[in-house]
Amino acid sequence: MNASYAPDRLELMAVPGIPMVETGDNLADLIGQALESNGLVLQDDDVLVVAQKIVSKTEGRLVRLSDVTPSEEACVRANDTGKDPRLVELMLGESRQVLRERQGLLIVEHRLGLVMANAGVDQSNVDTGCALLLPEDPDRSARVLRRALRDLTGADVGIIISDSIGRAWRNGTIGHSIGSAGILPLADLRGAIDVFDRPLQSTEVAIADEIAAAASLIMGQASEAKPVVLVRGFGPLHSTLDSRALLRPREQDMFR
Amino acid sequence: MNASYAPDRLELMAVPGIPMVETGDNLADLIGQALESNGLVLQDDDVLVVAQKIVSKTEGRLVRLSDVTPSEEACVRANDTGKDPRLVELMLGESRQVLRERQGLLIVEHRLGLVMANAGVDQSNVDTGCALLLPEDPDRSARVLRRALRDLTGADVGIIISDSIGRAWRNGTIGHSIGSAGILPLADLRGAIDVFDRPLQSTEVAIADEIAAAASLIMGQASEAKPVVLVRGFGPLHSTLDSRALLRPREQDMFR
Repeated sequence: MNASYAPDRLELMAVPGIPMVETGDNLADLIGQALESNGLVLQDDDVLVVAQKIVSKTEGRLVRLSDVTPSEEACVRANDTGKDPRLVELMLGESRQVLRERQGLLIVEHRLGLVMANAGVDQSNVDTGCALLLPEDPDRSARVLRRALRDLTGADVGIIISDSIGRAWRNGTIGHSIGSAGILPLADLRGAIDVFDRPLQSTEVAIADEIAAAASLIMGQASEAKPVVLVRGFGPLHSTLDSRALLRPREQDMFR
Repeated sequence: MNASYAPDRLELMAVPGIPMVETGDNLADLIGQALESNGLVLQDDDVLVVAQKIVSKTEGRLVRLSDVTPSEEACVRANDTGKDPRLVELMLGESRQVLRERQGLLIVEHRLGLVMANAGVDQSNVDTGCALLLPEDPDRSARVLRRALRDLTGADVGIIISDSIGRAWRNGTIGHSIGSAGILPLADLRGAIDVFDRPLQSTEVAIADEIAAAASLIMGQASEAKPVVLVRGFGPLHSTLDSRALLRPREQDMFR
């Protein structure tokens, strides 16, 4: 029961000065340097939201399309959707199941359990002729980054790896948490009471998704290149749960 | 093309001191008084996020269940779902179509176009024996509030009416914009460029939903009773579009 997580005030700020990252770069060091050069000192309970893209890049998830040989299924689906067969091959390799396809679009269940367009395979903000896959395990990426930042700064922060993802019934993408560590992903309000002292009907709030959506307002989507956002104002929201808690189990999904 | 909407810093703060509202209360006056008593002065381009619940209450959308006579369909669906037939009657009255039903849950297309559980009919934080419906026209509510606050304070602010809504594939609700005025609901990035000066692949960002999600972190869901959140830091994001722009047209919906 975490009904009182909501602070009265929150600040969101870009952490400027993160350079273009490459495979093998140490993200914690880069973030630490950027914070320091901006006079920002991490505090316990701060949350850092980090764009999936720079996590994936440092983890070497950039794939050269010329290295990809499309399967027969990839060629068929590429033909159906008008996409590059090599991109489709990458998408299929990242997916458990294709849920829908249409011109320019494959909607899949990603191997991480995310339902999303094009399996998160992305060509914007990456080198020409390449495509970027989601991190192997974004929750692990978040845990690793959290530990490294604690070693570096002494601060016990929450980490959210965010990505812009579309929704079933609404236009536009919004930031979602695809990996997290040290921050409650889902507040369970069962047993909480309303202003009339009666039990609340709604049960769970996807806090980590709300934080990722908020940070996305700072990150923007285009050339701003602000991949790290500091969110300050929460009290302790520690949790050993990670963002897998946000995935609706397939057997409870009524819209797949 | 609105690629550069993203500010480097945003502040979110509760506007304390909004009383329990009743039908006919003037929301602009109540918000104006709460702002003033907290020393907050509205500025141009501030965004106020207002919980649907207090908008609905002031607009008299509270229904006494003893006044509701369930139809035959409502009784059948109540039996199927284990819900109160009078609540189901209200839900059907607010819906264009029932999309799914199961124990304790109806998922509908609301008459406003929103796909949501229980047609937004809510019993938490409302008088016993009553249920609260969504505003008749939340975009209009937002426009009216925006104008009244401009008359009252001189400031040209954006208004978002927010509600906590579940998602198809993810656990937990998050704040969504169900009505808005004076704030761009959807940033169209087609034509924007990435850091390599190439066109971006992703096209639209649901800014108003991201703002509503951010504000929900402050509002909480339980007894906090913080129904108004001030979001400060955006540049001009004026728009004549309202939150209907966030609804995916039915013919483009692949998951209904």
